[in-house]
Amino acid sequence: MSFLRTLDQAVKTNHSSLCVGLDVDLSQLPAKYLSSDDPILTFNMAVIEATADLVCAYKPNAAFYEMYGLYGISSLIRTIDYIHTRTKVPVILDAKRGDVGHSSAAYAKAAFDSFKADAVTVNPYMGHDSVKPFLDYRDKGVFVLCLTSNAGSKDFESAGGQEPLYLSVAKHVKEWNHYGNCGLVVGATKPEELKEITKITGDLPVLIPGVGAQGGSLEAAVRDGGKRPIINASRSIIYAADPKAEAKKLRDEINKWRK
Amino acid sequence: MSFLRTLDQAVKTNHSSLCVGLDVDLSQLPAKYLSSDDPILTFNMAVIEATADLVCAYKPNAAFYEMYGLYGISSLIRTIDYIHTRTKVPVILDAKRGDVGHSSAAYAKAAFDSFKADAVTVNPYMGHDSVKPFLDYRDKGVFVLCLTSNAGSKDFESAGGQEPLYLSVAKHVKEWNHYGNCGLVVGATKPEELKEITKITGDLPVLIPGVGAQGGSLEAAVRDGGKRPIINASRSIIYAADPKAEAKKLRDEINKWRK
Repeated sequence: MSFLRTLDQAVKTNHSSLCVGLDVDLSQLPAKYLSSDDPILTFNMAVIEATADLVCAYKPNAAFYEMYGLYGISSLIRTIDYIHTRTKVPVILDAKRGDVGHSSAAYAKAAFDSFKADAVTVNPYMGHDSVKPFLDYRDKGVFVLCLTSNAGSKDFESAGGQEPLYLSVAKHVKEWNHYGNCGLVVGATKPEELKEITKITGDLPVLIPGVGAQGGSLEAAVRDGGKRPIINASRSIIYAADPKAEAKKLRDEINKWRK
Repeated sequence: MSFLRTLDQAVKTNHSSLCVGLDVDLSQLPAKYLSSDDPILTFNMAVIEATADLVCAYKPNAAFYEMYGLYGISSLIRTIDYIHTRTKVPVILDAKRGDVGHSSAAYAKAAFDSFKADAVTVNPYMGHDSVKPFLDYRDKGVFVLCLTSNAGSKDFESAGGQEPLYLSVAKHVKEWNHYGNCGLVVGATKPEELKEITKITGDLPVLIPGVGAQGGSLEAAVRDGGKRPIINASRSIIYAADPKAEAKKLRDEINKWRK
């Protein structure tokens, strides 16, 4: 089943447009996890158990696993495997990859064949042939960075004279969507621009980080996030005293604005 | 010792501005390697043995290791370790990473602390706070993508109205160079633009891929690559019948143009 259908199904079954970011930092884990064989996996399993019927996607960020070397990457692979075994929720590997064609092909193979992700985030800087090898996996989702939630987005993403770079990227992604497997990443901290972008990209799924710890407006993210907004929250849910309650609260709040 | 000093030392000792890209694809390996316990490492060791006194840097591309999952990443770590044990040549991890601040900090930790690279390539799309966590490792090198050698570089890198994106990136990188640890990546297939860029960035090291298999002009790369051109060749050397002879030939050709 294609990523888009898996996503739509999870949205429907779980009445949810909430994506939980699995960005585990060992230094933030409650002490009880640290004594297990694989603390990251054990912690993720608890989060997944608590939220599996409340989310439309999980988004592990590769950076937080790579920083622990082989051990962390093994936890990433086992986490994705656990999600596939335990749930029908798709996995978006937040990896922000991109390189010349044959290297991007290797990254796509890594994300989809080795790590078994259902979708991946990619960086558009190097242009169409750096994204194409990901798109060639027709059943997988490819979320292209468009306008991010950080301060540095002003340096290049929002710059570029008459047409800011993020709009050019949105237009290109619309064109690259031959197989219907493209999506975009747009930060919740930029509501006006989000509206502008989704006017161009219509029903493409938009992954929207920045509503939790980063403080973006949830209402705007849901209202202007196009037909398939995917609202991501990471730290505000996984480190909550009660992740299930926190996820349910955020899911319901999203649903309130969706109506 | 800082990356820049290690680099300058290797340039001097080996009379070389040649960087060898270790982008190993198992399907390209001679059969004799495939029966070893770790074919990628064994192949890399042979290339390193053959070229250690002919290069100023090695550049493994993370994509080619990640595509083999844990096994490949283990080979990457062991390869970098072997280079440090066997040679005084610095390792540039070609990873093209970049993310919001705390995630980039995790990627920097991965590249420098877990994988033990001396330098890393990063993607500037998300702006200054996505690059800063790498720069904060003052003794490490940070090569920022500027203008790449692929066809897709026209989509965004060379676009942007009055000031193309790659020039804006070059100017920003010049500003980000507080600790003297920045470099740039500029493809050899763009000689005119390379000249324009190095006019801005002066003595910053410029990693220049695209002279081997991709066919960029070596003369222009050396002549217009600033004071510290690092000429990268990957497949044309590592898969040559005689990598030592091929590396020596290219190193000497570079030195001819440097005079």
